[in-house]
Amino acid sequence: MVSIAIVGATGLVGEEFLKLINSSHIPFEKIYLFNSQKNKKDPILLKGKLHQLRPISLGELETCDFVFLMAGSDVSKEIIPKLKHPVCVDLSSAFRKDPSVPLMIPEINKELLYTFPKVIASPNCTTTIMLMALSPLHQRFGLKSIFASTYQAASGGGKKLLSHLLEETKRYLLKRNGAAEGLQYAFNVYPHPDQEENSSSNLEEEKMVFETKKILNIESLDIAVSCIRVPTLRVHGISLHAEFETALNQKDAIEALRAFPNLVISENPCEGFDSNEAYGKHEVYVSRVRVDENNPTRISLWVVGDQLLKGAAFNAFQILEHLASLQRV
Amino acid sequence: MVSIAIVGATGLVGEEFLKLINSSHIPFEKIYLFNSQKNKKDPILLKGKLHQLRPISLGELETCDFVFLMAGSDVSKEIIPKLKHPVCVDLSSAFRKDPSVPLMIPEINKELLYTFPKVIASPNCTTTIMLMALSPLHQRFGLKSIFASTYQAASGGGKKLLSHLLEETKRYLLKRNGAAEGLQYAFNVYPHPDQEENSSSNLEEEKMVFETKKILNIESLDIAVSCIRVPTLRVHGISLHAEFETALNQKDAIEALRAFPNLVISENPCEGFDSNEAYGKHEVYVSRVRVDENNPTRISLWVVGDQLLKGAAFNAFQILEHLASLQRV
Repeated sequence: MVSIAIVGATGLVGEEFLKLINSSHIPFEKIYLFNSQKNKKDPILLKGKLHQLRPISLGELETCDFVFLMAGSDVSKEIIPKLKHPVCVDLSSAFRKDPSVPLMIPEINKELLYTFPKVIASPNCTTTIMLMALSPLHQRFGLKSIFASTYQAASGGGKKLLSHLLEETKRYLLKRNGAAEGLQYAFNVYPHPDQEENSSSNLEEEKMVFETKKILNIESLDIAVSCIRVPTLRVHGISLHAEFETALNQKDAIEALRAFPNLVISENPCEGFDSNEAYGKHEVYVSRVRVDENNPTRISLWVVGDQLLKGAAFNAFQILEHLASLQRV
Repeated sequence: MVSIAIVGATGLVGEEFLKLINSSHIPFEKIYLFNSQKNKKDPILLKGKLHQLRPISLGELETCDFVFLMAGSDVSKEIIPKLKHPVCVDLSSAFRKDPSVPLMIPEINKELLYTFPKVIASPNCTTTIMLMALSPLHQRFGLKSIFASTYQAASGGGKKLLSHLLEETKRYLLKRNGAAEGLQYAFNVYPHPDQEENSSSNLEEEKMVFETKKILNIESLDIAVSCIRVPTLRVHGISLHAEFETALNQKDAIEALRAFPNLVISENPCEGFDSNEAYGKHEVYVSRVRVDENNPTRISLWVVGDQLLKGAAFNAFQILEHLASLQRV
């Protein structure tokens, strides 16, 4: 029997995580739900029982086997160092750079669980979605360079950004003046605005570069990323151009992708998935697989994935499943 | 005095072209407006006079100095070979591959006018916007490779696609069910769906690759392009990773861009332009100029431009200005 705590249970990722918990077969002894208590929320029906939303209590967290943190990095930084007993699975960026903390995408590196870490970090959503497509190709052909351009959805900025997109779009459509100059997000695309000090990258780009190198364990990887926000709801798209050590052909590339779990593949290089095809899906969708005719070590890809699911809640839930099965051993 | 004809005067590009004509100082003797006559349209007020929309007449076209074709490639293919006297400026893809037809972006290759071509093609909108940013860097540092991912607006698909986006978005917002799976374009991004036979690229990608090589006159250019439609109104975005013969530094790259006409530059590599900043503007906006720290022959850029203006109508209007001034010499 497993006791878990979810910190940040009422955010967008928390809501998806609870749906996964609700339909899972893991035998739960206790499920504690915590949130910021900023607004009063009704109890949540989960596995046939009503669960109160509690204010964060270190005492209650200590009684759990596993604590899942999805309330942002400030909360993770505050709580995780104080906990002694539970294994913490952190969805924020707080501990991803810590060398003792595995950055886990179970399809790629679940063997790191056998080091019995006290803290496990779930990567940035865009990193996870990109590496689900690149890792099987890397294993077979050896990755040399990545040039990535992202098409990131509103939900990556939380409930606030998602409702800003919907509200601003509605206002524009109902009171249309023809021009778009004043629009911040409706019908607009923009580079991620969060700057990193002394860097020409934004924070999202820094995360993707650092985390990709850590997860694939290639310090010298040649990687350039441009992170762009687009007016979509919750599916991230990534346009990839990548270079490998070994030449590829279309058939082998598709075969390597097909052999990897939780991918949906389009074999016809002309048929691309649109983002909404991945909406609400656990899998990452890979299409437009094109080997460069003039340089067969190069490939282009178009990847889409639900950033709340494989990008966050589903990846964390997979980690929970593995932790729970290890506990039973 | 200049006599011109505009074929396709009531399309999205035609409307923008007429605005440019209306405020220009070119001395016009005669302006003929042609459209498909599918729907009855009111006469258009232009330079103080009402102009009827005429059904296409070869006889009337022959009396003009310059014929501007913006009604699609079928119409261009039908009309252009039959015309003897006028110089034709074609905005469609019909003649772009013809070696005798210059593919013109005046900032880059207006000297081709001195070959006195009978047909001049204006490039694909995305090609033009991309090359406005890359050409000044190519001139100074020598372009080797381009990896481009596009963020293309609705207006590229004409009035029909633009109104589909607005109508579908409105329907979704007014009758929201939370999910996005049925949405075709509202809050969705998708690779261009038009396939090229026996190719893994779509038509838009084929155009960008061919036209870039022709305009820059580098047959061996290493170029990979992924063309993606995003739910924006009329500004195309392009995320570029490019490699040059010579190493660059940030200062020299910015200096080369600053010396080029019709560009708006953001010098701070963290400050990106959003697409709507370029809405209704003649210039192409270049930002996020980042030289790769580990490999200074590589650069990343974020480029946005109004696809109806520099991508089409404004580029054609610049060609008209040059033709008119040549005629006066």
